[in-house]
Amino acid sequence: MDLVPLIKEVDVALDRYLPAESAYPAEIHRAVRYSVFAGGKRLRPLLTIAGAEVFGVTLARALPAACAIEMVHTYSLIHDDLPALDNDDFRRGRPSNHKMFGEAMAILAGDALLTRAFELLATETARWFPPKTVVRLVAELGRAAGTAGMIGGQVVDILSEGKKVSAETLDYIHRHKTGALFACCLRSGAIMGGARRAELERLTRFAEKIGLAFQVVDDILDITGDARKLGKKTGADRERQKATYPALYGLEKARKLADALLEEALAELAPFGDSAQNLKALSRLLVCREA
Amino acid sequence: MDLVPLIKEVDVALDRYLPAESAYPAEIHRAVRYSVFAGGKRLRPLLTIAGAEVFGVTLARALPAACAIEMVHTYSLIHDDLPALDNDDFRRGRPSNHKMFGEAMAILAGDALLTRAFELLATETARWFPPKTVVRLVAELGRAAGTAGMIGGQVVDILSEGKKVSAETLDYIHRHKTGALFACCLRSGAIMGGARRAELERLTRFAEKIGLAFQVVDDILDITGDARKLGKKTGADRERQKATYPALYGLEKARKLADALLEEALAELAPFGDSAQNLKALSRLLVCREA
Repeated sequence: MDLVPLIKEVDVALDRYLPAESAYPAEIHRAVRYSVFAGGKRLRPLLTIAGAEVFGVTLARALPAACAIEMVHTYSLIHDDLPALDNDDFRRGRPSNHKMFGEAMAILAGDALLTRAFELLATETARWFPPKTVVRLVAELGRAAGTAGMIGGQVVDILSEGKKVSAETLDYIHRHKTGALFACCLRSGAIMGGARRAELERLTRFAEKIGLAFQVVDDILDITGDARKLGKKTGADRERQKATYPALYGLEKARKLADALLEEALAELAPFGDSAQNLKALSRLLVCREA
Repeated sequence: MDLVPLIKEVDVALDRYLPAESAYPAEIHRAVRYSVFAGGKRLRPLLTIAGAEVFGVTLARALPAACAIEMVHTYSLIHDDLPALDNDDFRRGRPSNHKMFGEAMAILAGDALLTRAFELLATETARWFPPKTVVRLVAELGRAAGTAGMIGGQVVDILSEGKKVSAETLDYIHRHKTGALFACCLRSGAIMGGARRAELERLTRFAEKIGLAFQVVDDILDITGDARKLGKKTGADRERQKATYPALYGLEKARKLADALLEEALAELAPFGDSAQNLKALSRLLVCREA
């Protein structure tokens, strides 16, 4: 799986699916595009595309849904960085959205991306798939991004800051804050591909494991990573007394947990054979990354 | 049209379509419900229901879409009230969402409502209408709430504060900030009812006129209204040097404009005869209100 051209395709599609920077009112479109094209790794679109590919869905058909999920992810980062939430001045080595455009525009840019994501499914994905499939995708994205998913995780994360957090709470945070959208990527791919129920459940289990592994690695990199490669300073979790896996289990045990989760995730893909080969390669990259 | 039982139906539906206050994490659901059940007039759901009724759609079938639009409206109020935007401490005579729950929870409560609105269309409206109709409704709501609609209006409003604003800019702000969602109510009703294209366009023109009239009245009430009835202090627009119709045209001319817009709007409904009778009654209430 050659990621570079694929990431390029995702970027071209995102550019096509967002209003031009010059579109009136330009300020909001500048703010939106600043964060969407801030050098994100496009993990969620890649997962969506690789998940869809398992069921024979072509890149062109998977792209709008892949971009919709990336927009939801980007909105969540913009809002998370706000002073009232994580108060992060930097994101991927550049000033965060509100530092560039002010808080009002950052809040609205996040709102705009969340809104556009759903619109994108109903317009662009609707060109390729029957309406019934589109409705399922909208429901999936809504559930994954809502209070039973990503927002729920964010809420518990905020409420837990500076407190001693149990393993159960840490699990809840990550299963929801990161895991729900990861699952949405794979489930969306499977839904576009007309997967049977058992296959959909299998991909969901895969996503849950890989999402958790991803988060454990994230926590580890905050301790051992290279700030330059990461594009953000390390040690931030500790500074904020954030609940993390290394803090709870120790660094070595956390690393073992990530590896075990990756193996379990890959085992879920075994029945799909070669059609899941890109998804497998991508999973390894997610867990063995340095940034 | 007896509004009291109808508003009650909308409230019961909103209650059913939102997670319980006790659902984990409770904080976010408390914040969401606080603003949804803050004594709103439910104008947008009522417009959606009355618009759908023109084409023979029953109340039960129109309710989910009506509630979805109300959720989008409520999210926009929560975010508008934030310190970074309008910095309003009160809304409908009660502390605004961020004064009650803090800024972080208010931002997330808005996000949650926007997300839930789309999910609601894809789950509850989907029980009653074919997927093709649901996809159109999602696209409509996305467009109306996005940067080409409500958010666009909000952006220009923010950028115009404290500046001398032209009649064109004031028009843009209201056509987008209020008008787009008003149009979405009527268009959604028409789409659910399988309206023909010409009918859809007619209802859109009606919505644009009634939306503008509504906004003119809003501006007038900020000067002449009873703060107790309105549930907010008057004179706020002037204090903030906000562009308003009375500021631009004078009070008397603004009132004449509202009346003229109402008549034009009602004229659009003439071809629908008795089926538009509730919609006509509602329009008069919107423009002749005291709060």
